[in-house]
Amino acid sequence: MQIKNAKKGKTTKEIKQIAKQENITTKELKRKIAKGQVVIPKNIKREIKKPTGIGKGLTTKVNANIGTSPDYQNIENEIKKAETAINAGADTIMDLSLGKNMQKTLKQLIKKTETPIGTVPLYRAFHKKPIPEITSNHILQTIENHAEMGVDFITIHSGITQEVLQKLNKTNRTMDIVSRGGSLISAWITHHQQENPLHKEFDKILEIASQYDMTLSLGDGMRPGCINDATDKPQLTELQTLSKQVEKCQENNVQVMVEGPGHIPMNEIKFNIEIQKKLCNQAPFYVLGPLVTDIAPGYDHITGAIGGAIAAWHGADHLCYVTPAEHLCLPNKQDVKEGVIASKIAGHAADIANGIKKQKDKEMADARKNLNWEKQIEQAIDPQKPTQLRKQRPTEDPETCSMCSDKCAIKTTEKYLKKTK
Amino acid sequence: MQIKNAKKGKTTKEIKQIAKQENITTKELKRKIAKGQVVIPKNIKREIKKPTGIGKGLTTKVNANIGTSPDYQNIENEIKKAETAINAGADTIMDLSLGKNMQKTLKQLIKKTETPIGTVPLYRAFHKKPIPEITSNHILQTIENHAEMGVDFITIHSGITQEVLQKLNKTNRTMDIVSRGGSLISAWITHHQQENPLHKEFDKILEIASQYDMTLSLGDGMRPGCINDATDKPQLTELQTLSKQVEKCQENNVQVMVEGPGHIPMNEIKFNIEIQKKLCNQAPFYVLGPLVTDIAPGYDHITGAIGGAIAAWHGADHLCYVTPAEHLCLPNKQDVKEGVIASKIAGHAADIANGIKKQKDKEMADARKNLNWEKQIEQAIDPQKPTQLRKQRPTEDPETCSMCSDKCAIKTTEKYLKKTK
Repeated sequence: MQIKNAKKGKTTKEIKQIAKQENITTKELKRKIAKGQVVIPKNIKREIKKPTGIGKGLTTKVNANIGTSPDYQNIENEIKKAETAINAGADTIMDLSLGKNMQKTLKQLIKKTETPIGTVPLYRAFHKKPIPEITSNHILQTIENHAEMGVDFITIHSGITQEVLQKLNKTNRTMDIVSRGGSLISAWITHHQQENPLHKEFDKILEIASQYDMTLSLGDGMRPGCINDATDKPQLTELQTLSKQVEKCQENNVQVMVEGPGHIPMNEIKFNIEIQKKLCNQAPFYVLGPLVTDIAPGYDHITGAIGGAIAAWHGADHLCYVTPAEHLCLPNKQDVKEGVIASKIAGHAADIANGIKKQKDKEMADARKNLNWEKQIEQAIDPQKPTQLRKQRPTEDPETCSMCSDKCAIKTTEKYLKKTK
Repeated sequence: MQIKNAKKGKTTKEIKQIAKQENITTKELKRKIAKGQVVIPKNIKREIKKPTGIGKGLTTKVNANIGTSPDYQNIENEIKKAETAINAGADTIMDLSLGKNMQKTLKQLIKKTETPIGTVPLYRAFHKKPIPEITSNHILQTIENHAEMGVDFITIHSGITQEVLQKLNKTNRTMDIVSRGGSLISAWITHHQQENPLHKEFDKILEIASQYDMTLSLGDGMRPGCINDATDKPQLTELQTLSKQVEKCQENNVQVMVEGPGHIPMNEIKFNIEIQKKLCNQAPFYVLGPLVTDIAPGYDHITGAIGGAIAAWHGADHLCYVTPAEHLCLPNKQDVKEGVIASKIAGHAADIANGIKKQKDKEMADARKNLNWEKQIEQAIDPQKPTQLRKQRPTEDPETCSMCSDKCAIKTTEKYLKKTK
């Protein structure tokens, strides 16, 4: 187990690999893991070729969601999307499959994927039975089942309590609940008039997580679904519940991260990160977007990149991608690629702002200055698209580009400015 | 003339139109124009159906660059790009044509376009003659020529002086000069060993601008071309020169805005806006991007949207779009559309953060809550793409989307949560 080992000063294989990737010492990394500031999502039942560290001072990580939907049950397609996401640079994959093939998809994914895999076991719990027939025990069983299958991290909507739902009823929210898992567990609580089993039985979940070293990702079922609902009482009440659960996790050597909004205007992002980090004892923060406007369906990878960049700059550690298909339909492979790249750009921009990663940009600038197109393509976050664009609209002089041709600023400067350096 | 009229308290047709668009009083608008905080780029020779106000407290505006390049001389294509840009929401168009058809393109554009049009007259000045043969007078003549043609705003790289170039030589810049106009005028200064005519003859330019009420956009020829060069001495020295020219413009009732970087890490954007606004007496700030990383060719509309959103939030008034083709080739129509939309998203997100515009987002949220897809499409920043996506991947129940289908959070919430409100 990563936390226990880190506390003992033992360097696991993953700690060694990640320290190298992140260019920090294993000592520093272990210190952060021991404090709960960094997690390494990895189920003890899995071998992961590309383990990932998520948290304070590390480079920003990106998660891509894939998964079948009731209307689209092709497993092969989803596996391909996962591969596309990983090739584009995704650090973790969440399988959010719904419908009859959900377990098969997850099994294949675990078998074929080299990155950490996350799930929302609630989807399985609510798959076959209608809400009135679902028991608390059944919900816990799906968590155990995913742990046994080797899932590396799970989202549990353990912060939605009867109190939170009362708050929701009293608040004039525009969108109420937009979290899929959040809506399901809220429906269960409301129907059964019982407390959320993910909250009530949290100790049992801790036991399961501990047994498999499965990282818990505390879901934000009350995340605002529109700008108008940002940073309101239901959201903040849920966060307070989550903060107590973080404490429990950290006390019990269970790796934990906290999920966050959602739709948030730019001017409230910093505050959202700060309060989460403060209340949750610096646990890694995993944000969905945030989306800085509601009006761009078809382009929400861009609204998410704006929000994600600002969030990661101010301390968010893990960015859940948003694809152009968000709010509209199940993403296809191309949407997945665009979503991952937009989030990678956001994370990288944040890493630059935080002084972590500038070398790649310097190498790109040198390649541009030298009109070395091969090197530019090589350094690009996605070598494929710039290659295509260059081919589509070439120029007579292959040293330049068809935007400026003989009026290339770099060439003009080289020719006329006799520099003394 | 807008400034003179505003100072006299006279409400021009444009002031009336813009005050209505921006939902402010004509009195407030005139006060801002009189102070030089807002400009209305409109040559007295033109009728503009969609006049635009750019500056403090107004919604963020977006500019799209079009124009032929030496390798691609099809005028029709460029006119179509301008139309595409305007349909996607561009507020101004700059014609940056190079090559033999540049004047023809501009003429057609002025004839056919309903938004303000800007140019960089230097491109014309440096078109036919080699640098050794170009005189100071010739450069001024091209400015006069564009003013006579009806151009509404021009970029002049008047901040590059012999002193700035000395600074550049002493600075260890990675990319030197990446501004096309900046490189041309620097080459001229270096070759002729004379001061920049745009600087030396600034009073003559003021006279021309004044005669036609042509807005001056003071170009940032020293804008950083990579993260490594951001906010360095050549950039700041040029800004100081520009600040003196702004003062001259404002004293002479010439509308003026200032152009800004360029490649800037997120953590330096706010500072860049603040120093420009402070030094340049709150003149409108027109930024290119800024791009928050160098490594995303093919996706620079996204890096530009991240930077542009942060810049506009902190006070930038006019965002020059960046297309996916930036750094690679001349953009095509699709690139133009994507570039404009990315910048519109950035500007809108900033307006939300600044409390100016939230109504459209609220209407979108209401439409989402009501599963009213028609209204969602109608409210979308681009109705076309979400329509296509919905058609491509439909769902059995047309009320939902194929991401969640029967697990739609909104439907679950509606069904189970008996709300008291």
